[in-house]
Amino acid sequence: MSMTMSEKILAKASNQEKVEAGEIIMADIDVAMIHDLTGPLTLQALKDINTDKVWDSEKIVIPFDHQVPADTLVAAENHQMLREFVKEQGIDNFYDVYEGVCHQVLPEKGHVVPSDVIVGCDSHTCTYGALGAFSTGIGSTDMSMVFATGQLWFRVPETIQFNINGQLKENVTSKDVILNIIGQVGQDGVRYKAAEYTGDTIANMDVDDRMVLSNMAIEMGAKTGLIEPDQKTEAYLKGRTNKPYTKVSTDADAPSLEVIDIDVEDLEPQVACPNYVDNVKPASEVEDVEIDQIFIGSCTNGRINDLRQAASVLKGNTIKKGVRALVIPASRTIYQQALDEGLIDIFVKAGALVCNPCCGPCLGGHIGLIGDGEVSLSTSNRNFKGRQGSPEGSVYLSSAIVAAESAITGHITAPEKK
Amino acid sequence: MSMTMSEKILAKASNQEKVEAGEIIMADIDVAMIHDLTGPLTLQALKDINTDKVWDSEKIVIPFDHQVPADTLVAAENHQMLREFVKEQGIDNFYDVYEGVCHQVLPEKGHVVPSDVIVGCDSHTCTYGALGAFSTGIGSTDMSMVFATGQLWFRVPETIQFNINGQLKENVTSKDVILNIIGQVGQDGVRYKAAEYTGDTIANMDVDDRMVLSNMAIEMGAKTGLIEPDQKTEAYLKGRTNKPYTKVSTDADAPSLEVIDIDVEDLEPQVACPNYVDNVKPASEVEDVEIDQIFIGSCTNGRINDLRQAASVLKGNTIKKGVRALVIPASRTIYQQALDEGLIDIFVKAGALVCNPCCGPCLGGHIGLIGDGEVSLSTSNRNFKGRQGSPEGSVYLSSAIVAAESAITGHITAPEKK
Repeated sequence: MSMTMSEKILAKASNQEKVEAGEIIMADIDVAMIHDLTGPLTLQALKDINTDKVWDSEKIVIPFDHQVPADTLVAAENHQMLREFVKEQGIDNFYDVYEGVCHQVLPEKGHVVPSDVIVGCDSHTCTYGALGAFSTGIGSTDMSMVFATGQLWFRVPETIQFNINGQLKENVTSKDVILNIIGQVGQDGVRYKAAEYTGDTIANMDVDDRMVLSNMAIEMGAKTGLIEPDQKTEAYLKGRTNKPYTKVSTDADAPSLEVIDIDVEDLEPQVACPNYVDNVKPASEVEDVEIDQIFIGSCTNGRINDLRQAASVLKGNTIKKGVRALVIPASRTIYQQALDEGLIDIFVKAGALVCNPCCGPCLGGHIGLIGDGEVSLSTSNRNFKGRQGSPEGSVYLSSAIVAAESAITGHITAPEKK
Repeated sequence: MSMTMSEKILAKASNQEKVEAGEIIMADIDVAMIHDLTGPLTLQALKDINTDKVWDSEKIVIPFDHQVPADTLVAAENHQMLREFVKEQGIDNFYDVYEGVCHQVLPEKGHVVPSDVIVGCDSHTCTYGALGAFSTGIGSTDMSMVFATGQLWFRVPETIQFNINGQLKENVTSKDVILNIIGQVGQDGVRYKAAEYTGDTIANMDVDDRMVLSNMAIEMGAKTGLIEPDQKTEAYLKGRTNKPYTKVSTDADAPSLEVIDIDVEDLEPQVACPNYVDNVKPASEVEDVEIDQIFIGSCTNGRINDLRQAASVLKGNTIKKGVRALVIPASRTIYQQALDEGLIDIFVKAGALVCNPCCGPCLGGHIGLIGDGEVSLSTSNRNFKGRQGSPEGSVYLSSAIVAAESAITGHITAPEKK
């Protein structure tokens, strides 16, 4: 029977030959991730079900990223609680406060391979779909069951495949592609379905950039956001992991498959306007918006490609007086690479504030909150009311290029068409 | 009449030929500093006395350093309030979230010259004594009077002059000198007196290192901590400032002068143990203390000399697993310099977390708090109960060298004697 990628992965994970969209299955979990913010809730839920020992300590990954280094006493205590848990359970895949943002660290450190079923207590766990894994965010109670049994139930999702074709113009990135798609289908456009990204635009995209598409699948309600593994995937995995893996692809005649064609040939840089991710406009149409802060970073756009793009805009320029520019590499590895390539130097010279790898202002956590009436232009993934601080502030979302251009001018600025 | 440096500076500031210790005088203020944490209180006090306009906008300096970038909504709003004030009052000497720690930024940017009377709403304002300024920390209510009138009353302090002689051994720093002095005289040993540092050890010391001595004058209760300006002072000032200044020195026969001779020839690296700055022991005697975190930074030891010392220890080494090492350059200029010299690279390669310039864990603010039972070894200035997070945690103070050595071993470690 013809199946989609999601169906094939979930069939294998539930030890069946086939599964159908709509079916409830029980899947074996390959990787389970909690971080410093959601981890304590999972530990509490695990206690509530009287479970002393996790099902498989090698399949659990725990990175600290949301409140690093600890910004409050509660955070410090949560970190301690999780470190203690890591010791007790013999969890080797633990990344303390220095390593970086979970959704960068997991692929980077080789925890993600194609056809894995991965769950994480974080909504952007769908990022790993860029490597062909069926990955999704779950709640802490569900996670406690995963920690106890190694399994979790899923309703097999239907698939909406975005068939994306066309050569992106210079200064147009995968962030613009996904913002444009979300703008078209709406924030519930793929609700509980698997998003899939295919087409020549994707084929030409680096894994770094693909992750942006998978990462934001959740912003249109998708359960996961898959990309079929190819040579670029294999090149990315090489040297990172020895985990065996299988590659699957979607059959064109799978019954649950819906295809939406997207032409990005003429796409311009996009901006998601307050207070919804699907309130998307071309950057050129919102150039009158003055900004107080830009943020380049997060699990969406804190990767080396993003930093390179931002640096190429900022090199030799000065950030406008009155604009705060925060640059936060998504991981220590990226930070080191940015150092080696001279990017950090460009940022600091331009007047940016370079922070330690962490989630930063994305979630209005412990770094870079905005006040009443302030405007943030952010490369992260959500612009809900109050997301980055004051509910009376505004958050716009864009690529690193648009953010960097805007930092120089002080208002939202579309890069020159080339 | 013979006078001390403090007396000469305060005589001039109060337009008198002479003043005597014990006398109450009204002094003209040359520089008044508030930062993001104490500034809002000053603004409130200014409102309470119905003052709309500051006496002299050019003499006010406002750096943001304690909560940068804003870690809470309250911090974001405080920042906004102060930015608004800066605009209203036409204050040019404003340093937003990127510039660094106040007590580094003020000297670095040329706001401090010899014989200035400088007040700041921060207890370590005494740092500027290293350049021969009479500088001291004051409360926000007092500051509102300064903002309104440009003057403040002082009781002219007696002076205790520490006459420090001897060649410091390699790996022994000005931090060890001041910790040793505080250990000898106690935390109230210089209460409401002016500390003065003189002798050949001081003459041979860079301004960076001298600032450590002046910075920690408050930890023995001193009103200020002065060093007579010399060629090194002039070299430091050159290119930073056009402010005119006069140089004064203490007369050896000044009636209010007390001299304490200190020989540092055989001094070993020192550590202040919990929970008092005067609980000082040689590092070699507390090597059994295991540590969870080290912090290299703050207005005490976040300067380029400190970073160079730490980097020279860490180069090619790895921070022990389980130890969190935070390196926070005290200013953007220092960060840039550390980048240029390859120090940031050394820190990141060793496994340290490099944060944006700010006060960091020093005050248990918004970065790097410790939990119950955790031990911090810190290059900052205070180790009071709960100072860096949990009241059940412990803070030890040391130089950057001892902190870096200890990061490698995981316990307090005296550098090898050379």
